[in-house]
Amino acid sequence: MHQNDCRASVARDMTTQTQLAAPTLETIREAHRRIAPRIHRTPVVTCTSLDEIAGARIYFKCENLQKTGSFKIRGASNAVFSLSDEEAKPGVAAPSSGNHAAALSLAARWRGIPAYIVMPSNSSEAKKRAVRAYGGEITECEPTIAAREATVAEIINRTGAQLVHPYNDARVIAGQGTAAAELLDEVPDLDVIFAPVSGGGLLSGTAIAAKGLRPQIRVCAGEPQNADDAYRSLASGAIEPASARETMADGLRATLCPLTFSILRTHVDGISLVTEDEIVATMMLLWERAKLVVEASGAVAATPLLTNKFNAKGKKVGVILSGGNLDLHKLPF
Amino acid sequence: MHQNDCRASVARDMTTQTQLAAPTLETIREAHRRIAPRIHRTPVVTCTSLDEIAGARIYFKCENLQKTGSFKIRGASNAVFSLSDEEAKPGVAAPSSGNHAAALSLAARWRGIPAYIVMPSNSSEAKKRAVRAYGGEITECEPTIAAREATVAEIINRTGAQLVHPYNDARVIAGQGTAAAELLDEVPDLDVIFAPVSGGGLLSGTAIAAKGLRPQIRVCAGEPQNADDAYRSLASGAIEPASARETMADGLRATLCPLTFSILRTHVDGISLVTEDEIVATMMLLWERAKLVVEASGAVAATPLLTNKFNAKGKKVGVILSGGNLDLHKLPF
Repeated sequence: MHQNDCRASVARDMTTQTQLAAPTLETIREAHRRIAPRIHRTPVVTCTSLDEIAGARIYFKCENLQKTGSFKIRGASNAVFSLSDEEAKPGVAAPSSGNHAAALSLAARWRGIPAYIVMPSNSSEAKKRAVRAYGGEITECEPTIAAREATVAEIINRTGAQLVHPYNDARVIAGQGTAAAELLDEVPDLDVIFAPVSGGGLLSGTAIAAKGLRPQIRVCAGEPQNADDAYRSLASGAIEPASARETMADGLRATLCPLTFSILRTHVDGISLVTEDEIVATMMLLWERAKLVVEASGAVAATPLLTNKFNAKGKKVGVILSGGNLDLHKLPF
Repeated sequence: MHQNDCRASVARDMTTQTQLAAPTLETIREAHRRIAPRIHRTPVVTCTSLDEIAGARIYFKCENLQKTGSFKIRGASNAVFSLSDEEAKPGVAAPSSGNHAAALSLAARWRGIPAYIVMPSNSSEAKKRAVRAYGGEITECEPTIAAREATVAEIINRTGAQLVHPYNDARVIAGQGTAAAELLDEVPDLDVIFAPVSGGGLLSGTAIAAKGLRPQIRVCAGEPQNADDAYRSLASGAIEPASARETMADGLRATLCPLTFSILRTHVDGISLVTEDEIVATMMLLWERAKLVVEASGAVAATPLLTNKFNAKGKKVGVILSGGNLDLHKLPF
């Protein structure tokens, strides 16, 4: 199933203008003050043998070590704690079968409010278990965009819950940008920063934070060749539909929305496409050399560097390792 | 093959009195000043879901993220950089087929001197590759203690190299203690600290650092049931020989030496034995929940906590995750 949440009319209907104004470095700083007491300040790790492969000095921002196992808790908790008590009381809702679902569930638990998660009926039991473990209330729907929209709309109408979209939301984007802000606070003289791109929330936040803190930095993304819609969108100048191909990077199947597309057009310097084999090779390098469990989607930002598709010779490069959630019994190697 | 380096007459003959006086908190601090510019200050990671399993607050000191993939670079580099230029010039030598071999090779490369590593001829190609990658010069010998001793002695006689024993050396023990010192500097109010035990170098350094910085702390170890010689030694009051059983924790097969035995008797509060199944279960928890690649030997210190064999309810517990070197194609799960 390819996600394309952004085109959901639910998202458009429920999203206010404030949530759709692009965040700024200042809103990212505000987000950081809001969420810092609740999240991990994740370590920045370096690894000489990977540096040798890339010919660069790489600083890995370990969001795989973040609470819930991915960066998603940054955006989810910023959105949840941005709500007034009155707004928050009925709870929050989102369509998501992945890391955002788990993160929103935990953020809602912290706030003491319900989280209504709409998941397609074909989601894995492991993903459902993770959401339930964090206290999320799952509503299953047919695995179509129409069914998901209708289900989210029905929940919001019935409960008064606030939509917290996985990326079409400035509060979420500002939260995701705090990872890059922390990285640049620690390593201020980066030449380049890499993030993965899917719906564009993490990459948008990364770009705004990085260019705000260091205007001369290059902001780049890794994207699976089999989910190359962001690459095509930046090339064509219009939001392109999802690819029909499958990728093991199952967190990177969403497509851009107008908000993230406009931020990416302004701030992102380039996207490198990577093959499935290259993603597996990168995962193995990160596991074996850097000793970090990184999921396929999380490895994609490092792939252009470790395959030398992106020439980073002699540069200082930041890489957001976005997540580490996977099934150890279904490893791709 | 069971390692029992300590009984090697080579080690006894070549080890000076200074190297056999137990280190102190002050020598650990000196070691830290000496090696800190060269090694990683490894992150301390917490993980809520593992805390829930243990009923405790666990602080993982991530020596799997250390240079060379284990804590061994701490002791090896302290020994190598303790040498005068004259002493250092002919190089260093050690019998080791594991993490100490790689670490000593890298420390010697940093110092610009040769490292002579004596490895049994049945060592895996992967281990030999790692040593060569760090610049170590391998001499193979028959996989017997006698052959290893003779080979090390021959090299030392021929080259004038200094022996840097993996644990029967106060400089090495002081270096290993710097991991616990860093952990306690960061989390000063730990109730308990766990390390794995093999030859006892890491546990000795951990105990001296921890009790020096916080006298009321409990110092405990995890040890494989199938390599339970340290457990038996503390119980019987004499250094016991290696078990005949096999363990997947291949870094924990050495036995205590008089130096480490006397430190452990004075400072260690208890050793918990763990089964092979429990080690695998702990590895999987650390990989899946904490997203850390930890080798079997490195997981052993966490096993008593995550199996509830050690009751840490309500306590603040430090755990040294000692290493992360393994073959991803030979996972035990």
